[in-house]
Amino acid sequence: MSSAAAQPLSGVRIVEISSFVAVPLAGMTLAQLGAEVVRVDPIGGAADYHRWPLTAGGDSIYWAGLNKGKRSMEVDMRSPDGQHLVQRLIAAAGVLITNVAGRQWHSHEALRTLRPDLIHLEVVGRADGTTGVDYTVNAATGFPLVTGPVDHVGPVNHVMPSWDVSCGLYAALAILAALRRRDATGEGSRIRLPLDDVALATAANLGFLTEAMVNGDQRPRLGNAIYGQYGRDFATSDGESFMVVALTARHFRDLAELTGTTEAVAALADALGVDFTDEGRRYEHREVLDELFAGWFGSHTAAEAGAALSASSVLWDRYQSFAEVATSPRVTANPLFAPLQQDRIGTYLAPGLPMSIDGAHIPAAPAPLLGEDNSAVPAEWLGR
Amino acid sequence: MSSAAAQPLSGVRIVEISSFVAVPLAGMTLAQLGAEVVRVDPIGGAADYHRWPLTAGGDSIYWAGLNKGKRSMEVDMRSPDGQHLVQRLIAAAGVLITNVAGRQWHSHEALRTLRPDLIHLEVVGRADGTTGVDYTVNAATGFPLVTGPVDHVGPVNHVMPSWDVSCGLYAALAILAALRRRDATGEGSRIRLPLDDVALATAANLGFLTEAMVNGDQRPRLGNAIYGQYGRDFATSDGESFMVVALTARHFRDLAELTGTTEAVAALADALGVDFTDEGRRYEHREVLDELFAGWFGSHTAAEAGAALSASSVLWDRYQSFAEVATSPRVTANPLFAPLQQDRIGTYLAPGLPMSIDGAHIPAAPAPLLGEDNSAVPAEWLGR
Repeated sequence: MSSAAAQPLSGVRIVEISSFVAVPLAGMTLAQLGAEVVRVDPIGGAADYHRWPLTAGGDSIYWAGLNKGKRSMEVDMRSPDGQHLVQRLIAAAGVLITNVAGRQWHSHEALRTLRPDLIHLEVVGRADGTTGVDYTVNAATGFPLVTGPVDHVGPVNHVMPSWDVSCGLYAALAILAALRRRDATGEGSRIRLPLDDVALATAANLGFLTEAMVNGDQRPRLGNAIYGQYGRDFATSDGESFMVVALTARHFRDLAELTGTTEAVAALADALGVDFTDEGRRYEHREVLDELFAGWFGSHTAAEAGAALSASSVLWDRYQSFAEVATSPRVTANPLFAPLQQDRIGTYLAPGLPMSIDGAHIPAAPAPLLGEDNSAVPAEWLGR
Repeated sequence: MSSAAAQPLSGVRIVEISSFVAVPLAGMTLAQLGAEVVRVDPIGGAADYHRWPLTAGGDSIYWAGLNKGKRSMEVDMRSPDGQHLVQRLIAAAGVLITNVAGRQWHSHEALRTLRPDLIHLEVVGRADGTTGVDYTVNAATGFPLVTGPVDHVGPVNHVMPSWDVSCGLYAALAILAALRRRDATGEGSRIRLPLDDVALATAANLGFLTEAMVNGDQRPRLGNAIYGQYGRDFATSDGESFMVVALTARHFRDLAELTGTTEAVAALADALGVDFTDEGRRYEHREVLDELFAGWFGSHTAAEAGAALSASSVLWDRYQSFAEVATSPRVTANPLFAPLQQDRIGTYLAPGLPMSIDGAHIPAAPAPLLGEDNSAVPAEWLGR
């Protein structure tokens, strides 16, 4: 891999004024692509500086995880001097990413006079300017009311903050697109990215909102079943669970074969007068199919089920805990992960970007100490 | 907004051989940034061509949603002639994105001889080459075992395919980075992006895997509570639910005030000898705090709760169904959405990219008819 592959953003400088997930993830992603990203925090750190999980010593594993490969400055941004310094750094860098909205001193309006071709990206809660975070945005998407056991009443929140992560990746993408525009035309960009719009656009792109608009209805709560397809979880005799998916007619045929239900499935198709090579029919009749297959899983161990599934085309995996995943070969023998010596946290396996380029991974670099670059960055960027 | 803002990828040509979510989303995103993206499908469409949700007429709302703004070719890719045509199109375009792995004829090895500076991006299931889709990858992340009601036994799947969406956005990002590299150096890129690695990297970046590595433990199933913070759902007297989050000391103070529990919270802090300005203490004692606040929500209507929350700094939203969201002003009065006339599906509100650039949105363009550009693309790209 050439250095250009590992560092396509080499020479790009970015100021980040952020907290929590979306913008920190965007900055980290851009740093992993070779940009020099300086996260500027208020004295003592931003609102995410002590976020859980913490080490036994009280340091934030979370903060370290989302600020890898950045530089750090700690600035009194309430003082005119501090604001002036950060404005000069932004003007020198030419790119600002932030989720700290509503501060006039680092608004696009205030900064464009200092740097006419500025790329200014602001993540906000909602398009109308009101606040929102992943958990509140998610409540208002529709997803929690169709997640969880079929007989459950009330919402089920996601644990994985999907909107924050997608928003951070859209932000990184928007910066790359704006850099391309500036290279070609000399023009800056003022980009506004509402977290809520990330959620709404995704729910619409995937059909969740569109089916309500077009068909006037919406899907029900399905438990662990996949909508419009055949797939669900099964428990084995030793108490493990497997997610099993048959997207194609071949997958489904193999699932029937490995569970010894080929004849029963054929008889069922005859009795119902349906063709199970059609994914919609597999979905509509999923409950009776579930019963056929569940018997086989319930009378086999996880080892037996895993062996049979491995030998088939069926898509599957066993449900695992974070602790099991963290120590599995999928992590420990995966070139995505490399040992990272992280001040305050310890040495652990940290991921780089989740893609290889020309066969190689870009490894992660440690997160900075808060304020570690207070002297170096102004000296290098402003010559003072 | 200048045309350069709306079309930073103007002049970039991309061939997409794909199905389902990740690569179609990547191609659509790149098309929305101005690239000319040709999705090449087998005769009759790929495995996602009939995916639910469907219209009453049987057309896939899902397919239309993830292929907006692309061109389409329908090619017999089992025949040598078909393969040869697609190879020539890829060589002419210079960029291939695909999740159809293991086909020698469109491997990087086969294509780089035709186009030495090719950008070749392949999404695969897992890093070790085995298969995986969002639902099976998710089972093996750890998330389903900590999602859902505290007293639930067994996994709870997500309904929103987070890994597919993140993978698609990482793929789009990787293409922009590779284009930048090629512009600077003339070099192509061979990019391999495993869906499983997207999930593992995200779970690690957010601390879920890292806390298991560093602290040797992991978080329990928390229901709708937020880990390490104060936030959860509350039901109102008229049966609505609200997600309520207090990330800062100010949010928490306001939540106590609006629920009339300021004195009770202070007395509780005294009795427990804890300082609720520390987010960790709010989390640790969440259950008794829940009881204090739940009484207020349970004796107020949704309208009353919404009015009180609106007047405070507290982060909140009401849980809503897809049908309610689809007809709410957040969609109908949001410049992110514009009416789209979609062949076979009808006219509906479709989102563009979820960011505005220089104050304007890039609107969505319709999805093509399958094979609509069978003649035009070879004529334009190959001069035949």
